[in-house]
Amino acid sequence: MTTDLLPITERTRVHRLRDRQVRDRQMLDEILDTGLVAHVALCFDGQPVVLPVAYARDGDRLLLHGSSGAGLLRAAAAGGQIAVAVTHVDGLVYATSLFDSSMNYRSAVVFGTASVLEGDQRLDALRTLSEHLMPGRWDEVRPPTGRELAATLVLALPLDEVSVKVRTGGPSGAVDDNTGWAGVLPLGVHTGKPVAADGVSSELPLPNSIHLAQRRHPTPPQSTTIKER
Amino acid sequence: MTTDLLPITERTRVHRLRDRQVRDRQMLDEILDTGLVAHVALCFDGQPVVLPVAYARDGDRLLLHGSSGAGLLRAAAAGGQIAVAVTHVDGLVYATSLFDSSMNYRSAVVFGTASVLEGDQRLDALRTLSEHLMPGRWDEVRPPTGRELAATLVLALPLDEVSVKVRTGGPSGAVDDNTGWAGVLPLGVHTGKPVAADGVSSELPLPNSIHLAQRRHPTPPQSTTIKER
Repeated sequence: MTTDLLPITERTRVHRLRDRQVRDRQMLDEILDTGLVAHVALCFDGQPVVLPVAYARDGDRLLLHGSSGAGLLRAAAAGGQIAVAVTHVDGLVYATSLFDSSMNYRSAVVFGTASVLEGDQRLDALRTLSEHLMPGRWDEVRPPTGRELAATLVLALPLDEVSVKVRTGGPSGAVDDNTGWAGVLPLGVHTGKPVAADGVSSELPLPNSIHLAQRRHPTPPQSTTIKER
Repeated sequence: MTTDLLPITERTRVHRLRDRQVRDRQMLDEILDTGLVAHVALCFDGQPVVLPVAYARDGDRLLLHGSSGAGLLRAAAAGGQIAVAVTHVDGLVYATSLFDSSMNYRSAVVFGTASVLEGDQRLDALRTLSEHLMPGRWDEVRPPTGRELAATLVLALPLDEVSVKVRTGGPSGAVDDNTGWAGVLPLGVHTGKPVAADGVSSELPLPNSIHLAQRRHPTPPQSTTIKER
């Protein structure tokens, strides 16, 4: 994908609530770069299966990895079509009716066929996955062994066919003090206090990678304004 | 489902990392009752589609709802097999190698065919969905109109075939101060400061439903111990 505008295909066209379809490539990158888990769907004999899988974006492709024994990833590696969703729930939208109540969210769904990465490509992809999931950790620990690499299946899915939907802002419809409170309760992912493993002294300084992860998932911003998209 | 043990079928058997399969019905209920969005997968002509959908649990079934114009829900209403995943990411697990690093998570995947609810059943289901997503809000706002009900598709999926996987605890493998810091960075969903909609005075007291939602998604517990499952 070389343009900044996401192409619309039969599968990625949003038919309902079209105003929520976003074709901005930057929004796609933001959604993918701030998530941790994707939901990967695949059809086995025409029956759907869906599983959470750790992922990362690497330029114009999505990287997925897991055990080389994982059935769903093996089927994807064998050329099965997959659909991969990354979703952020950003808030609950309280309108003055339940029908108009909603959620604020950002979601991306990628359609396509993945290819298996091997050799140096696999190692590079694992580093990208590591930097996405646990930034800074790659350089703090030993490199993967040959045995570990052989046990890891790494797939790349091009970002050629992607549907992005976003809802932001307050409830639709006019509200005032007489209709009762209406607004948004923001939601976000938040880190708790790091917990040292059994055997590790709680006096041991935290590695830089923990600080980086904490910066990545801070307490959600206490926004004071609502932007209607 | 009348037993407390989840049945294992060909689709719900975990083949890899079997120790993460959980058959405890209570864990299933906890996973479903604390999530907001499910990822619903369906096959169109053998090709997978997956979308985030708001849901709720009602006893031994999962309720899904959306616009009666939503293609995926319409296909599910027409009898298409679906797979529905609810996933909580509970933490990042920092081991002394990347291979042993992991995520703590709780996930449930439900397989089956949904049925359409109408009339009083639909109304009851919408109330259950509302109480799950925005507890207390149903009684604060006007009831749905006939037109709104007609525009809403509500599906029920029995919890007959469910796969539950859970990872908790610290990194696998022995660690000590000489191997460097290892442990868990907890993650959780957190609410921000409620934002009044345009037209609503920020002086207007928050409704009880906001307080209930804040209690449902508090700052994640600052756990000090790690339990290995």
